Amino acid sequence: MSIKLKAITNPPSREELSNRLEKVRTLMKQQDLDYYISFNPVNIYYLTNFAFYVHERPFLLIIEKESSPKMLIPRLEKGHFESRARCELEFVIYYEFPARNGENWYDYYQKQIRTDATVGLESELPIGIANKTPGKIVVSDIVDETRIIKTDYEIGRIYHACRVVNKGHKVLFKKCRPKVLEFALYKEVTDAMMSKIVQDIPNANFRATQTTGAVWPPSISHDPHLIPHIFKEMEQGGPHVSIVSAQVDGYGVEIERTFFLGHVPEKAIKPFGVMFEARTLTYSMLKPGTIMSEVDKKVRNFIAERGYGDYIIHRTGHGLGITGHEAPFLAEGYDKPLEKNMVISVEPGIYIPGIGGFRHSDTVLITEEGFQKLTKAPETLEEVTISL
Amino acid sequence: MSIKLKAITNPPSREELSNRLEKVRTLMKQQDLDYYISFNPVNIYYLTNFAFYVHERPFLLIIEKESSPKMLIPRLEKGHFESRARCELEFVIYYEFPARNGENWYDYYQKQIRTDATVGLESELPIGIANKTPGKIVVSDIVDETRIIKTDYEIGRIYHACRVVNKGHKVLFKKCRPKVLEFALYKEVTDAMMSKIVQDIPNANFRATQTTGAVWPPSISHDPHLIPHIFKEMEQGGPHVSIVSAQVDGYGVEIERTFFLGHVPEKAIKPFGVMFEARTLTYSMLKPGTIMSEVDKKVRNFIAERGYGDYIIHRTGHGLGITGHEAPFLAEGYDKPLEKNMVISVEPGIYIPGIGGFRHSDTVLITEEGFQKLTKAPETLEEVTISL
Repeated sequence: MSIKLKAITNPPSREELSNRLEKVRTLMKQQDLDYYISFNPVNIYYLTNFAFYVHERPFLLIIEKESSPKMLIPRLEKGHFESRARCELEFVIYYEFPARNGENWYDYYQKQIRTDATVGLESELPIGIANKTPGKIVVSDIVDETRIIKTDYEIGRIYHACRVVNKGHKVLFKKCRPKVLEFALYKEVTDAMMSKIVQDIPNANFRATQTTGAVWPPSISHDPHLIPHIFKEMEQGGPHVSIVSAQVDGYGVEIERTFFLGHVPEKAIKPFGVMFEARTLTYSMLKPGTIMSEVDKKVRNFIAERGYGDYIIHRTGHGLGITGHEAPFLAEGYDKPLEKNMVISVEPGIYIPGIGGFRHSDTVLITEEGFQKLTKAPETLEEVTISL
Repeated sequence: MSIKLKAITNPPSREELSNRLEKVRTLMKQQDLDYYISFNPVNIYYLTNFAFYVHERPFLLIIEKESSPKMLIPRLEKGHFESRARCELEFVIYYEFPARNGENWYDYYQKQIRTDATVGLESELPIGIANKTPGKIVVSDIVDETRIIKTDYEIGRIYHACRVVNKGHKVLFKKCRPKVLEFALYKEVTDAMMSKIVQDIPNANFRATQTTGAVWPPSISHDPHLIPHIFKEMEQGGPHVSIVSAQVDGYGVEIERTFFLGHVPEKAIKPFGVMFEARTLTYSMLKPGTIMSEVDKKVRNFIAERGYGDYIIHRTGHGLGITGHEAPFLAEGYDKPLEKNMVISVEPGIYIPGIGGFRHSDTVLITEEGFQKLTKAPETLEEVTISL
């Protein structure tokens, strides 16, 4: 039974952000942390709505147990920060990197933290910053953990982002014909998505917006992380494998398809079928309570039984949210249960040198009763064989 | 006296990369390090020619004192890595993140390093990785240090990249008129640069290529790190401040100008002049041996004496190379001398709310006798006043 979702395009309310902060503070309490320091721009965006690139001038969010969080930023960024942040914050401003003796970022940073405190740090925090942190350090990925279960607001944003990639994928299938260049496809697909983003969210934050549209034609589709050459040509037959992904004003989603131009080579029929069944098997297990490593294990075993065990080169799926790749993971070694309002990709894949790659990926919401696909595009062998 | 430079567009030779590695090893020896671990994608690119984004699957370059460096990567990336890397390397391949017990990235990582060794780590290395590193840890930014002095090959690449931004800037000046939208300018300028890049370097690595073209019209030009709204209109008069920057197949450069459309408002004349003189003063000090913090100090004092001390919000310049922002810095607190074959930006700025921003920036090579500007565009008040 499918639930009714509503696409959301407006920025988060102060309430949404303060609820996220409260979740972080609940975990801080459980772990007896007096402070939590966030450095990862994705986590800072999640809590403040301010997006930036990491460079030599550090940006640090200092969360205390109770009073307003403090944002340590270079002076140059204050106006930018204020134009985007949508939560309560105090600023700690340093002038520049580097700066005169006694006026560097760490001089200001160290004044914010009691030396007898227990301080939680992200595992992504650079050791150069960790070494300047006062107090007793505990590494704990509290904000990352908070991000795993999506709020209703986030689900609405992700649902909207999926409409953007659905559109990109539609353009890709329309334009992808033998001899068409990678570069031309990239332009058409990303332009279509960017137009929709700008129309739907005129004030979109381009520091948190990015679009990709690419196809791995059959000669390289067995190697999914190779970057196709921009003058690479699409070919007759297949398997071609497409990636259409976007970060839409802060929300990352993807849709990927294996497809054929004109005809399906004989040797591609069986692996396509096995990939398709592996996918059906994955979906059959998606509901709250299923252990994620078990999904991956069963899917791998299924593919191996069908003779393609040597051609599995990645996990069955990964989480999506503020980024297009994050916890949770449908992977052996990740022994936690699926929960309602997680968003994951479902993408078991088979990659056979000499034949090609076989992978569909969708962005999928875990619901109370099971799952709901948020992306939509042709799926069956018949549907993904484009007649010329 | 200007030296003759030659634009280079081909990828680095194995010899170029092995020379860079030797410089790193020389510093390792001086600091008594048995291993050096690089995590920063920029540093790994510098030493291998392989570019990637950081995500949850770690990529680590493990440099020993003598034998080939080892590259720890997820299996999925092997083909991609081999298609780009141009140096001697051994691979250490792990399957996925996360993985089954005993098969995670750190299980493989820890086997590469002797527990009695002294191990150098970048200050940017995440604490989650530092905590998994065997041996005695020393934080030292050896690769960053090596990157400060450019090789002849790099200077040729940077010179080529400057031609790309020169072209982008020319288009910007041609298209920038009152009422033109930010979005339209961005498209025109970045398309022009991207076309040149693709023509000059058909096999450019798009993981290390990026272009930006933007203008801060007078209503926001006092706040240089605010991101202009895409529907922002260009205005009559000024000061407008433009940024044209690019990372061209791995080399980052910039050119920025303060300019006026139709007329120069009376109140902009003096600050423009002071900025211009501050710039002349900066250039007069650029030669090997000058202490960089001294340049910044003298320039600030000069601007302050002219009455604009409260309107300085950033340092006088920064290094460029693989990135558009890196050491060395023309900044108080950075007490090292300029050396031949450093590449820096020269961009003293004045930002007055209600009047606007005043900053020209060029990408500049330090030569034996002084300096050579690598970017080229109109400079004087007359030249930057565009008649309508």
